[in-house]
Amino acid sequence: MFVVGVDFGTLSGRAVVVRVSDGAELASSVHDYRHGVVDEVLPHSSEELPPDWALQVPSDYIDVLKTAVPEAVQAAGIDPAQVVGIGTDFTACTVLPTLADGTPLSELPEFADRKHAYVKLWKHHAAQRHADRINTLAAERGEWWLPRYGGLISSEWEFAKGLQVLEEDPHVYAAMERWVEAADWIVWQLCGHYVRNACTAGYKAIYQDGSYPSREFLEALNPEFGDFVTSKVEQPIAQLGDRAGALTAEAAAWTGLPEGIAVAVGNVDAHVTAPAVQAVEPGQMVAIMGTSTCHVMNSDVLGQVPGMCGVVDGGIVAGLWGYEAGQSGVGDIFAWFVDNHVPPGYVDEAERRGLSVHEYLTELAARQRVGEHGLVALDWHSGNRSVLVNHELSGVVVGQTLSTRPEDTYRALLESTAFGTRTIVETFQQAGIPVTELVVAGGLLKNQFLMQVYSDITGLPLSTASSEQAPALGAAIHAAVAAGAYPDIRAAAGAMGKVARNVYTPDPGRQKSYDALFAEYTRLHDYFGRGGNDVMHRLREIRRTGVPESLEGSG
Amino acid sequence: MFVVGVDFGTLSGRAVVVRVSDGAELASSVHDYRHGVVDEVLPHSSEELPPDWALQVPSDYIDVLKTAVPEAVQAAGIDPAQVVGIGTDFTACTVLPTLADGTPLSELPEFADRKHAYVKLWKHHAAQRHADRINTLAAERGEWWLPRYGGLISSEWEFAKGLQVLEEDPHVYAAMERWVEAADWIVWQLCGHYVRNACTAGYKAIYQDGSYPSREFLEALNPEFGDFVTSKVEQPIAQLGDRAGALTAEAAAWTGLPEGIAVAVGNVDAHVTAPAVQAVEPGQMVAIMGTSTCHVMNSDVLGQVPGMCGVVDGGIVAGLWGYEAGQSGVGDIFAWFVDNHVPPGYVDEAERRGLSVHEYLTELAARQRVGEHGLVALDWHSGNRSVLVNHELSGVVVGQTLSTRPEDTYRALLESTAFGTRTIVETFQQAGIPVTELVVAGGLLKNQFLMQVYSDITGLPLSTASSEQAPALGAAIHAAVAAGAYPDIRAAAGAMGKVARNVYTPDPGRQKSYDALFAEYTRLHDYFGRGGNDVMHRLREIRRTGVPESLEGSG
Repeated sequence: MFVVGVDFGTLSGRAVVVRVSDGAELASSVHDYRHGVVDEVLPHSSEELPPDWALQVPSDYIDVLKTAVPEAVQAAGIDPAQVVGIGTDFTACTVLPTLADGTPLSELPEFADRKHAYVKLWKHHAAQRHADRINTLAAERGEWWLPRYGGLISSEWEFAKGLQVLEEDPHVYAAMERWVEAADWIVWQLCGHYVRNACTAGYKAIYQDGSYPSREFLEALNPEFGDFVTSKVEQPIAQLGDRAGALTAEAAAWTGLPEGIAVAVGNVDAHVTAPAVQAVEPGQMVAIMGTSTCHVMNSDVLGQVPGMCGVVDGGIVAGLWGYEAGQSGVGDIFAWFVDNHVPPGYVDEAERRGLSVHEYLTELAARQRVGEHGLVALDWHSGNRSVLVNHELSGVVVGQTLSTRPEDTYRALLESTAFGTRTIVETFQQAGIPVTELVVAGGLLKNQFLMQVYSDITGLPLSTASSEQAPALGAAIHAAVAAGAYPDIRAAAGAMGKVARNVYTPDPGRQKSYDALFAEYTRLHDYFGRGGNDVMHRLREIRRTGVPESLEGSG
Repeated sequence: MFVVGVDFGTLSGRAVVVRVSDGAELASSVHDYRHGVVDEVLPHSSEELPPDWALQVPSDYIDVLKTAVPEAVQAAGIDPAQVVGIGTDFTACTVLPTLADGTPLSELPEFADRKHAYVKLWKHHAAQRHADRINTLAAERGEWWLPRYGGLISSEWEFAKGLQVLEEDPHVYAAMERWVEAADWIVWQLCGHYVRNACTAGYKAIYQDGSYPSREFLEALNPEFGDFVTSKVEQPIAQLGDRAGALTAEAAAWTGLPEGIAVAVGNVDAHVTAPAVQAVEPGQMVAIMGTSTCHVMNSDVLGQVPGMCGVVDGGIVAGLWGYEAGQSGVGDIFAWFVDNHVPPGYVDEAERRGLSVHEYLTELAARQRVGEHGLVALDWHSGNRSVLVNHELSGVVVGQTLSTRPEDTYRALLESTAFGTRTIVETFQQAGIPVTELVVAGGLLKNQFLMQVYSDITGLPLSTASSEQAPALGAAIHAAVAAGAYPDIRAAAGAMGKVARNVYTPDPGRQKSYDALFAEYTRLHDYFGRGGNDVMHRLREIRRTGVPESLEGSG
């Protein structure tokens, strides 16, 4: 008996065939989205997109169902009739406007050339002004739900992006009958029913304790926005692991899977990873470390954690409070450094040694004792998600001298992201939500030195995902529960999840030394991030628009 | 009628033959020091030098006289008999221990393997602790001469280096009968007389208003140090442009010049440049821009400029107050960036275009409008000479994002050094010492974009040296005065100096925009440099010695 998990990422979708009894991954297949991330020009027009826009094309997701799923089943060498369920996970908040029947507006000829008709990918960051207004108003009105999001609603989420549609393209806004998370849209395409999953409803649509933000609040943002929830957002909520419906004949034809098998409720790539790495107990913080890092953790306590992304009842596993936090730049900072700031001699030597530049720099950096490079960096090159929730922040390196080498700065950047993780962990702990273990998944796992640095800096044991496609495995686990093979996610995770426990533990000496560097990180973090010096905001503004009149001559 | 100027730099010495009537430079020759900068292992032993040490070997200087001088005279095609004088300039404070007859201790067999017997080059930075004690004590005692040095005595100067010899090698200290500036030692070798020049006596040996620091002060530093001045430092002072003596037969043999011609009093490379670029009037600030930048300027006013290197009566031209300031890292910061942080694609493209990497990055950087890169940097990769006088400071870059390219950071570093210059200029102006013009000499002159940035940022017109060997020309001008061909330096500078006036003038729009970025620079400058956050000191300490016990666990 088998299930299929499908993980919809930023650039591609991956299908994996998993044995229900033990989680064995028989085969997988990846399909790259034809249009990738649309951030320069719309596919059906020559219109150039403004800065910070990031769109996608919905048919690319269907292509994953049509290609990666049958390919994975074929590669697994199983009879498709043995597949009892399909589960999915998606990036989030990735959201699109549709008609009442789920047809994306971008697929209607009259809207194909309007940018607001397309999927807004999670990293579409052009709704910051709208998010700012939401936050200011919510704080002024003392909206009770605001602390559930660490005090700040992100520009990435449904309300900011929805308000942007209304105010920048009222015509698209009027035509959109539903504002749908892609996580739910793909399930809708598979089973013919639109159900909202508890995870994105809570984390991305401000759904808390059974309700959304009030009509009064929405009208105060914009009179035309008052019915946003009632006319475009509201939809029955289903718990993670529930069965959303049965695979339709059409979707069975796309995928080659049997019509009528269970389709699991939609889910998010980070959250679905928790059962894949058997981290469903309170205190086990899952860190999915790739270009960015997402942290998810269950707790039996409801607390207010400043700067977390959110806490949602059943947001990871039904029956527990699911917490989410994140770091907006991690692996992409390392990649930026390697692509832009490593000289030819290093690149040549790495090639000669048969190493990637990352591996070579890591090898050199690993020889140093703690603090030997004399540097401390802030990991904000892509902004800061937790705990400052500010995408206008930027990177800092302090301490470079004429003897600073590339491996020095590289190591300082590695460490800075670990300090960022420690800041998040400590913020949780200070809010009364214990963190006892880091369980790491994602592409950065393969850097063993980095993992040890994270353990030394956080002082926590690190467990590691044993699957290289943990989100897809997690989606498959949800499929198994939806199909009734296990009573709940916890049981399925125990049987099908895979983790290596305590692979890295803190070295007491290095841990102590890092405490001193973390104190420096924190001092700079608070200075640049909490109002001591808003230079980063002013530099952004100058970068965007030139020196404002009001600043001219102020020197 | 001709004179010879010899410029003793950090790595080589340059001789130039100059026509007395108009300053025409007929020919020059460069001789590289055989031992260069000794900063790893002593020449006559396998002893490894500690960090921050930088030594030289005195015979290397004599070799310049023996090779570069006759080569230049030969290349000039003149009869050596037409040469009427020789002048020199030297790096400073570069200082060596000798016997009473001028013999360097390092040339005595019993001292050849002792590092303290060698020349301590200007950039020997291992006497910082000694300088710290001098400064603390001088401030406590309210020594009247301290404000003449901007409030801080440098670790590079004679007293800090001398105290280091006493405390680290009392045997060498006891044997040394004179503690001699190399600028004076070379003149001693040429004319057989030891006279101290007013420039280094004032700037490097704390000679002010006719006296040195008192015996009480010295004894309070270390009881054994009480007679440092009377037994090792004191010597008759001569004014710049004076005749120190006549060329000896031995030196005539080395150089091929006529015995008995005038030998000018010793001088410093930066200070000797002022007449070479006709900048001998009050308000004309000469910036010699190379790996580091030295600023020298005359004034008829005696003022207290915080963080200047010093003010000396007749320190540049007899009869005026000579001010000196400096930036310890300029061109070497740009070189560090190019060597360590520019990726292969850029290096290849520069090569394909037949440009240096500097030229290529400058071309890319020059296309941006002010502030477009979104960065601000502190130019302290080699510490800060003026106005903070702190070699423990280090570099900072604020504002990097994932879209920051090498040319962005490169431009920010160029600008940071111009902000450093503006900080110096404003500090002079705030102290009541007007600065009306920048006159630039040195290797960085050839970067026209950089020059324009300096003019835009400082708001000053920039004049440029027309000679590519301005210090050697300046030494020759001093030789002409010493030989009696001109009544004084000012007259000789008018006839023999060469400058292009107002080659760059500020663009009003860019100047205004830069005011906003300079305000950011100043805010960071004061935060990191004036006690807001001493992170750079702590990082240095951790780098040197690991995390101190007292800091452990402080995070």
